[in-house]
Amino acid sequence: MAARQIIIDTDPGQDDAVAILFALACPETLDVLALTCVAGNVPLALTTRNARMICELAGRSDLPVFAGCDSPLGRELVTAEHVHGRSGLDGPDLPEPAMPLQDRHAVDFIIETLRTRPSGTVTLVPIGPLTNIATAFTKAPDIIERVQDIVLMGGAHAAHGNVTPAAEFNIHVDPAAAACVFGAGAPLTVLPLDVTHKALVTPARNAAFRAIGTRVGDAVGALTGFYERYHPERHGADGAPLHDPCTIGWLLQPDLFSARRVNVEIETGSELTMGMTVVDWWGVTDRPANTTFVHDINAQAFFDLLTERLARL
Amino acid sequence: MAARQIIIDTDPGQDDAVAILFALACPETLDVLALTCVAGNVPLALTTRNARMICELAGRSDLPVFAGCDSPLGRELVTAEHVHGRSGLDGPDLPEPAMPLQDRHAVDFIIETLRTRPSGTVTLVPIGPLTNIATAFTKAPDIIERVQDIVLMGGAHAAHGNVTPAAEFNIHVDPAAAACVFGAGAPLTVLPLDVTHKALVTPARNAAFRAIGTRVGDAVGALTGFYERYHPERHGADGAPLHDPCTIGWLLQPDLFSARRVNVEIETGSELTMGMTVVDWWGVTDRPANTTFVHDINAQAFFDLLTERLARL
Amino acid sequence: MAARQIIIDTDPGQDDAVAILFALACPETLDVLALTCVAGNVPLALTTRNARMICELAGRSDLPVFAGCDSPLGRELVTAEHVHGRSGLDGPDLPEPAMPLQDRHAVDFIIETLRTRPSGTVTLVPIGPLTNIATAFTKAPDIIERVQDIVLMGGAHAAHGNVTPAAEFNIHVDPAAAACVFGAGAPLTVLPLDVTHKALVTPARNAAFRAIGTRVGDAVGALTGFYERYHPERHGADGAPLHDPCTIGWLLQPDLFSARRVNVEIETGSELTMGMTVVDWWGVTDRPANTTFVHDINAQAFFDLLTERLARL
Amino acid sequence: MAARQIIIDTDPGQDDAVAILFALACPETLDVLALTCVAGNVPLALTTRNARMICELAGRSDLPVFAGCDSPLGRELVTAEHVHGRSGLDGPDLPEPAMPLQDRHAVDFIIETLRTRPSGTVTLVPIGPLTNIATAFTKAPDIIERVQDIVLMGGAHAAHGNVTPAAEFNIHVDPAAAACVFGAGAPLTVLPLDVTHKALVTPARNAAFRAIGTRVGDAVGALTGFYERYHPERHGADGAPLHDPCTIGWLLQPDLFSARRVNVEIETGSELTMGMTVVDWWGVTDRPANTTFVHDINAQAFFDLLTERLARL
Repeated sequence: MAARQIIIDTDPGQDDAVAILFALACPETLDVLALTCVAGNVPLALTTRNARMICELAGRSDLPVFAGCDSPLGRELVTAEHVHGRSGLDGPDLPEPAMPLQDRHAVDFIIETLRTRPSGTVTLVPIGPLTNIATAFTKAPDIIERVQDIVLMGGAHAAHGNVTPAAEFNIHVDPAAAACVFGAGAPLTVLPLDVTHKALVTPARNAAFRAIGTRVGDAVGALTGFYERYHPERHGADGAPLHDPCTIGWLLQPDLFSARRVNVEIETGSELTMGMTVVDWWGVTDRPANTTFVHDINAQAFFDLLTERLARL
Repeated sequence: MAARQIIIDTDPGQDDAVAILFALACPETLDVLALTCVAGNVPLALTTRNARMICELAGRSDLPVFAGCDSPLGRELVTAEHVHGRSGLDGPDLPEPAMPLQDRHAVDFIIETLRTRPSGTVTLVPIGPLTNIATAFTKAPDIIERVQDIVLMGGAHAAHGNVTPAAEFNIHVDPAAAACVFGAGAPLTVLPLDVTHKALVTPARNAAFRAIGTRVGDAVGALTGFYERYHPERHGADGAPLHDPCTIGWLLQPDLFSARRVNVEIETGSELTMGMTVVDWWGVTDRPANTTFVHDINAQAFFDLLTERLARL
Repeated sequence: MAARQIIIDTDPGQDDAVAILFALACPETLDVLALTCVAGNVPLALTTRNARMICELAGRSDLPVFAGCDSPLGRELVTAEHVHGRSGLDGPDLPEPAMPLQDRHAVDFIIETLRTRPSGTVTLVPIGPLTNIATAFTKAPDIIERVQDIVLMGGAHAAHGNVTPAAEFNIHVDPAAAACVFGAGAPLTVLPLDVTHKALVTPARNAAFRAIGTRVGDAVGALTGFYERYHPERHGADGAPLHDPCTIGWLLQPDLFSARRVNVEIETGSELTMGMTVVDWWGVTDRPANTTFVHDINAQAFFDLLTERLARL
Repeated sequence: MAARQIIIDTDPGQDDAVAILFALACPETLDVLALTCVAGNVPLALTTRNARMICELAGRSDLPVFAGCDSPLGRELVTAEHVHGRSGLDGPDLPEPAMPLQDRHAVDFIIETLRTRPSGTVTLVPIGPLTNIATAFTKAPDIIERVQDIVLMGGAHAAHGNVTPAAEFNIHVDPAAAACVFGAGAPLTVLPLDVTHKALVTPARNAAFRAIGTRVGDAVGALTGFYERYHPERHGADGAPLHDPCTIGWLLQPDLFSARRVNVEIETGSELTMGMTVVDWWGVTDRPANTTFVHDINAQAFFDLLTERLARL
């Protein structure tokens, strides 16, 4: 079977970096067409820099990297340097990137790719705020029906919010964009905090990355080590949640996860609950299911797979 | 130690009925001053009837029962006959009540009782919508600082809503009243769906009620049997949640429960999340704790206690 | 024809004071049953004091004055000392009141009066926030259909807000109470800023009050003089709006005014527009008319009437 | 002085058509770089057709016309065929357009034009929903500071809404886009219903268009005649408001208008007031002015100017 074509829309971020490396380590399964960058964990100037540093770390300076939107729809950008450090990639000591950014805008690359590749063959993997995706859908609604799947990290149900009591960071940064994407009608798979808070980087798992003994292994050890040490959302857990790589894990081996078809609506009206993913878990409304909501994970098998694949780079 | 004085503010409801019986069965610990009725599960005309039927079942036709507010603050009343049956007490075959309703309004009884009893000696136990309590606090704010505690059934965090994906019934019926009570500044203990969904009436527990072999035991068996059979929120669980008696369980034996001090705000602005209890479980905001939020229960010990006490009536 | 029975629900306030005097000066037309006080322009302790001072100024120390609610439903009280001065009655030099407050709560007086007088014979005249009225309607919904009319000062359409760009003070202080009253279904006549901003105390009109040459005339001159000099909402107009007496003017001589039947809804959801009276002036929705919305006034005839009547006291 | 460069962003619509003709009739003052089309009064397929028909009517088949966004940000498109007829240009009998649409997306044309022309030399004239402008600003925020001015038709203050009691059509169709544009920080001039409802097509003014005696005059007579006859917002006025050409009138001769610097915020949170332009007319908040809000017009001089210029085509 041909590898599945994906575009990773990203705001690296240590966990974004691991997700990108994870995907690049599986070329037989995943054909990463490009990275499209968005503002989120850190501003756009840094997410475009960090994305290229990770490509070079993976020996993939040929991979096209595009800059996208640098602020949410109609809201101020709120970043998360308290989680990711000043650069967004604090932890390892990586060189500044030498490879260039592409000239085109990320939004146009997404539109053109979906228009020119056969319909139903390209999957979007957004692991940051949904500004690029929503802007592409608004500018070119004809592409929506051509999307194979959207597999995104964001939102929360049982886990509740991390940035507010009700909202997860990626959705809270750009609720209007999220409302656009969740309402668009394209196939949608969501990896929320419910699952990522069960994918914890423990000291043992961090040690496994370092034990790979390669430059990538060392870097991932340093990235997740920084993340693990300073993560303010640990809440007494044994480690820090490794959010974004869960999307790649799902694409590679969905049988490591449990999911449920549910309706999800995005709260955009009230500041108290702004950006909440309101999940109709028990079907108490008559709103139709619009999301495959992933809620559980075989965490050790997931980390074993991740470690094994990273070792190939 | 003298028994703790409580006013049960209620909208019976099968589970309200069991809560009332539970309290009346423990006179050495709980001194039930009165029942104050409110519209909720069924309209006020039925909740006042049902409350008196339960008093008479318990042999307590002397207990004062007051009628309170018959609709929420600025919203239409939404009832729950689909859960409780047409009468609110479907299940047992109980006679119409002979005892009278008190002349005074429930709100005035609450105000006067708090004003005339020593400050800090009366606990309010609201197990329906909070309309009566909010109206009393609005009419007579001087009573707020005289309340010993408010121990209420309502809201949800981990369990999410039952009437909408975000909201629990009691709070959703009258969000403005809930905002008033949660913001009043009185001591506040909340028994939400998180805990009541762990207090399930299973067939075995229902059989234990019936095995008491008294008129009360038979009635509780029939009440919880109806509830157990028809409860639309079972969601595949082994039984139906017995919400309201949890408040009495907490008052009798708090060591059967786990609780956490948190901030809770009530959503009153957005229809999507209307009536949600937004719980800052991890302290991600700087809003001060205003609630003792009970989240876990030793369910078997709770049902054993409940059965044992009901047998005394 | 017998005089029309009214209850003035009030938060004096200089313009409240003039409204009360205006009503008391017309005993052949208006039978003022009582003053019920609410928190608003200043806290309840001052509005109850001020109401009694005005009764004594009018030689009506026999008039019952009741204390009502001292804070809005579920919101903090916001007062308006910057408009009315520290006491709410800054301007004249009036003695502290000697007459007592009634023992009963204003809300109970309203309920009992509506229950005991023939249905359709008592008009409520709220000229402050609607907390007392909403609390009475919530506590005793049976009285709603017994109300002859509610003639209130509040809201705005063409005039827009005074306390925020969208909201008028009385409604903004307690939007939940306003939503309750506007949605109750009782006959409702609203005197909004649209009309009161055309009832301006000019220097000439102030001089006319002083020229009455009585103690009441001097006091009204001082009250409206203070108001006229310091009123921060003048916006370049020739004088300060004399809001509350417009309700009495409407009761005495409605042909001095123009009105329109419209639907009015109260915004309670968004902070930006909180407390706005959303008026469907052109009937662009299918919401039924629920309000007689008074929008124009023959201002000079109104002030002539007011001056002539005050001279009788 | 060189003619001012403008891009008209439009959803024709009869009044859009007149605005376009008005601008094209004034080449010495206004250099129309292009028309960019958006969905609004009618769907995008029709607005792009109608825009080209108008260019051809004006003898300007050389003018580039671009298709833009065909639905608002995160909301369903609501059109206004009840105002504009099925085609959006009901009234005259115009041939289907022969000139092509440009290949590029309207959003990209806007971005590139602002990037390649000297900063501060291009004015945007949006006379439909703000979806294209907001999408351009989101995709390429660097262009915001290069905008000379945004002169838009939309919103309402004294005139209140036309599509709901609180909201004007253009803003209500895409409130999130409006919030983006009003918050962007670019110079902003707004021609709201306050002014356009004073620019009425009366029978006499319609006759003046027809009396021009040219093909354009006949067409404008038919366009505004349709509009005048069927306009559901007349509300008893002498004619129908000619909204969009007011923007061109302001660019040509601002001394025909009165304006005020105010703060305007867009309501995006509550359905009751959704899309309202909340104008702080009296400066009661401390929000800084962000808008030149045009509120009055010398209507006869405006129509004289419009008629005289249309005669030149």
